[in-house]
Amino acid sequence: MATFPFEISAREGKARTGRLKTPRGDIRTPAFMPVGTAGTVKALYMDQVQGAGADIILGNTYHLMLRPGAERVQRLGGLHKFSGWSGPMLTDSGGFQVWSLAQLRKMDADGVTFQSHIDGSTHRLTPARSIEIQADLLGADISMQLDECTNFPCTHEEAERSLALSLKWGERSLDAFGARDAQTLFGIIQGSNFPDLRERSAKGVTAQGFGGIALGGLAVGEGHDQMCATIDMTMPHLPDHMPRYVMGVGKPIDLVESVARGIDMFDCVLPTRSGRHGQAWTWDGPLNLNNAKFAEDTSPLDPVINCPASQVYSRAYLHHLFKAGEYLGPMLLSWHNTAFFQALMAEMRAAIAEGRFEALRATLSAGWENTKSKPKAES
Amino acid sequence: MATFPFEISAREGKARTGRLKTPRGDIRTPAFMPVGTAGTVKALYMDQVQGAGADIILGNTYHLMLRPGAERVQRLGGLHKFSGWSGPMLTDSGGFQVWSLAQLRKMDADGVTFQSHIDGSTHRLTPARSIEIQADLLGADISMQLDECTNFPCTHEEAERSLALSLKWGERSLDAFGARDAQTLFGIIQGSNFPDLRERSAKGVTAQGFGGIALGGLAVGEGHDQMCATIDMTMPHLPDHMPRYVMGVGKPIDLVESVARGIDMFDCVLPTRSGRHGQAWTWDGPLNLNNAKFAEDTSPLDPVINCPASQVYSRAYLHHLFKAGEYLGPMLLSWHNTAFFQALMAEMRAAIAEGRFEALRATLSAGWENTKSKPKAES
Repeated sequence: MATFPFEISAREGKARTGRLKTPRGDIRTPAFMPVGTAGTVKALYMDQVQGAGADIILGNTYHLMLRPGAERVQRLGGLHKFSGWSGPMLTDSGGFQVWSLAQLRKMDADGVTFQSHIDGSTHRLTPARSIEIQADLLGADISMQLDECTNFPCTHEEAERSLALSLKWGERSLDAFGARDAQTLFGIIQGSNFPDLRERSAKGVTAQGFGGIALGGLAVGEGHDQMCATIDMTMPHLPDHMPRYVMGVGKPIDLVESVARGIDMFDCVLPTRSGRHGQAWTWDGPLNLNNAKFAEDTSPLDPVINCPASQVYSRAYLHHLFKAGEYLGPMLLSWHNTAFFQALMAEMRAAIAEGRFEALRATLSAGWENTKSKPKAES
Repeated sequence: MATFPFEISAREGKARTGRLKTPRGDIRTPAFMPVGTAGTVKALYMDQVQGAGADIILGNTYHLMLRPGAERVQRLGGLHKFSGWSGPMLTDSGGFQVWSLAQLRKMDADGVTFQSHIDGSTHRLTPARSIEIQADLLGADISMQLDECTNFPCTHEEAERSLALSLKWGERSLDAFGARDAQTLFGIIQGSNFPDLRERSAKGVTAQGFGGIALGGLAVGEGHDQMCATIDMTMPHLPDHMPRYVMGVGKPIDLVESVARGIDMFDCVLPTRSGRHGQAWTWDGPLNLNNAKFAEDTSPLDPVINCPASQVYSRAYLHHLFKAGEYLGPMLLSWHNTAFFQALMAEMRAAIAEGRFEALRATLSAGWENTKSKPKAES
């Protein structure tokens, strides 16, 4: 298995900036990966994603294995060729979507059997099959181990049993991955919000020898503060030299606070999902373009961000597009949000390099205080 | 009223090619105008529309007067600035959509009162109000007179009464338009499929002194052959030097057969509407990308048309996007279809200039024979 060189060029506190060097190009870190669920970053052209500043995108194994099918993607030349994205690509293992989307899922010690939410057909994911799909059939540059995703909240006993399984599956994933000189595999830390379990998981995954380490089980309803606390309890047990990836995170304030804690990589559907629903993320917080107050607002979303969707179109026009249900509304806001998230990452990278990250963090986190996710009510 | 210079540079049979010169740029004829219903050509960026080769687009008065409102568009700087299209723009009068979309419409000798299909609010269009909306508030380069749209089929008596009203409204439209040195107004010929009425309407509209002449009442269910027959019965009564515009037409075969009869301008929602539903128009006829036979077809839609949507993406990928319900499917097919329609117009212009239009027509019309619209069943 290749371990991509990870060069940290500057630090401020726990935050760090650098490059993860892959055969398909460098990933500037901290990096935000737009999500290309089903071989397309929703409502965007790939050159817009690249032009916005993204070095890497994420593809969803669960979606692609069901439609168009992983073997079909391989016959069509792999996911890069199929989707038109030529830069680095990370795929998830499929596990998380099996837990959140599939019907009649059934776990056993070797994997999970489930029915497609699309047509009810039966499928099975094991650690080895997930690797086969990701690395062989889709052709991911970075694959993720299959792990079990516990509900949040869960008991210590449940979390402990689950993380033991995930560690075992990590080992099987590494075995299945074998020797590949241009692809790498990341392990995933679980343990819910229990410090002893996060520590055990972090140490276990680190010892297994992956090319990078992800924190799983976040952004699942725990809220912003618990997310930060979980990162805090995990970080002391991670090696400095490996890239650290928080899966499924998050809002801009989550990104800032995670970078401050030493996280290097993120992915989230928020920029495009928000964009489809009329929400624009800005330095001043989120704006709901459906709101009538924008009906005659001739200002653009952001005159500085180097993206036509941010600079050229008036808020009045965007408001009109959403009221009229026009495709161009989601197209423009998904583009703007993608560009804004990339601009935020670029600004954090520059701030770390210039020793002004803590000042930036203080300003942004204060301004975005009211966007912090609350914990989901316990059921 | 300005009369835009119309320079015919080549002819073959009744077909002709040239330029209609407007203050915002030349319109190469024969010209196909993409439809920007509500201030956006659906699912396209304006630079894609321009890059596809369109010199002019059409805006719908009915849609814009209801949402966001014509006065609001004016306050926001006019339709060019609002929508981001800087080239020539033609607006329709709103009449056709009042007939096809509005609720509880009520005609009188001076105009039509109707309820919005969006919110039921009451509105009124008169010849003068339509001109005010188009020329003053939206800022159209080419406005269309308000006319009455009869049903198809209709009786000779209905068509005769209706065309008399449309002629009167044409006169009122010209009066309301007055002296404008950078904008022009087109009249509209009606008369259903009655030769004597089309002749009377053509002569009447010609005598009124518009800047261009449109054939209305087509593409309303009469079918391809009756459309051609109606154009044939009308053309002998039109002056050679004025641009001739068939409203709402059409399929590629309609465009070819209309150009052969001396038509200079067209508009139709077909490229984008088809594109949203998975239909791609090609030199070989329409393809339904929803069809399973494209699931592993790695060829592009058209390797020659200078448009990424035509050249770069595989049919397999397009098929996948439609099966998955992804935004990018309608985006790409609307783009391809718009580029294909513009490529067809460019090819017809070149063929006329090079004296090979009849050969082109013979090839295309034979290949597209089975795409001819049949007459709508009479009720």
